[in-house]
Amino acid sequence: MSELLSKLEWRYATKKMEPSKAVPQEKVDRILEAVRLTASSSGLQPYEVIVVTNPAVREEIKPHAWNQAQVTDCSHLLVFAAWDNYTEERINYMFDLVNEERGFKNEGWENYRQMLLASYPKRDAETNYQHAARQAYIGLGSALIAAAYEEVDSTPMEGFDPAKVDEILKLREKGLRSVVILPLGYRATEGDWLQSLKKVRRPRAEFVTLVD
Amino acid sequence: MSELLSKLEWRYATKKMEPSKAVPQEKVDRILEAVRLTASSSGLQPYEVIVVTNPAVREEIKPHAWNQAQVTDCSHLLVFAAWDNYTEERINYMFDLVNEERGFKNEGWENYRQMLLASYPKRDAETNYQHAARQAYIGLGSALIAAAYEEVDSTPMEGFDPAKVDEILKLREKGLRSVVILPLGYRATEGDWLQSLKKVRRPRAEFVTLVD
Repeated sequence: MSELLSKLEWRYATKKMEPSKAVPQEKVDRILEAVRLTASSSGLQPYEVIVVTNPAVREEIKPHAWNQAQVTDCSHLLVFAAWDNYTEERINYMFDLVNEERGFKNEGWENYRQMLLASYPKRDAETNYQHAARQAYIGLGSALIAAAYEEVDSTPMEGFDPAKVDEILKLREKGLRSVVILPLGYRATEGDWLQSLKKVRRPRAEFVTLVD
Repeated sequence: MSELLSKLEWRYATKKMEPSKAVPQEKVDRILEAVRLTASSSGLQPYEVIVVTNPAVREEIKPHAWNQAQVTDCSHLLVFAAWDNYTEERINYMFDLVNEERGFKNEGWENYRQMLLASYPKRDAETNYQHAARQAYIGLGSALIAAAYEEVDSTPMEGFDPAKVDEILKLREKGLRSVVILPLGYRATEGDWLQSLKKVRRPRAEFVTLVD
């Protein structure tokens, strides 16, 4: 088994975190960098990550996340917030940035920009948001592995009220909508019902099918 | 920079793969294992991965994927296929498997099962499929990192006709719908326009916001 897989075996959705143990900033930075570097559709990275360390803000979020203790027991609460829509401005920003960083314009890339400009902005906002939200889930998948690799615990959570979290973090004003949240911290030695239980996954034969 | 991050810097959406170089089976197996081990909502793992190595089947898929050469130049084409719906049967299967593997029933877990049974199956199939598809994107995020970790190239693709791929792989009959595809292979030394270009991502300050 590779080192990565043994860390993925070690990972679990931590139910009780130790409030006195904060994740070192350099580990948080590396986890965020893994998210920033991952793939997204057309490279648009149509989401942002809000890192909430402020205790009062996390207390405010907690009741809207089924009162899950990790929201306040963690040291860093990551909120994945997707673009509420694809706009011309957002698409052009990313294509311009690519041209600027690479120092030249590529014809195929410019044609691709025009194709996106002709299709995405006219779709309804909800369709675009749903597409952006899927990309945020690629980021979540990356964060989960990157956290495990750093031996940092995490708990992916869909169980929260996005409208409330949007309000608390003023996300709608920024054209964002919260998608999924991920507390980062360290498992407590006591009080976590899941910690000692076997990780269960469908057997390989029921998860993977070979067409050869 | 960690070893993981340097591999993520190395990764890119490979545009031209070398058809004569196949990914060793043990690497494919470790990539699939990373997907199998990752998190999913309520642990349901509501998707499967179809691994297509058969050349004729990949030729059949290719025209429905914008004729992207990686579909046939790769050695393993992963198709992430989400459940078309959450049914009582599927939910019970997973909860029963957990009980069986752990050797006991947990009251909290059983209450949670009842909550899911009371809510998911009565939602419309499209809502459930969309939720399942998001989980498949966590798997995709895991596969991308795991492939990079194995120094295997990959190209995540949304640009294909899901209905056609479903038909070719007979996915609907199995209650599945294709979500995203991921060729695995090795970058060709020539003919890849993206290979030499700088990887561009939004600067950290525009991707991450701290609320402290």
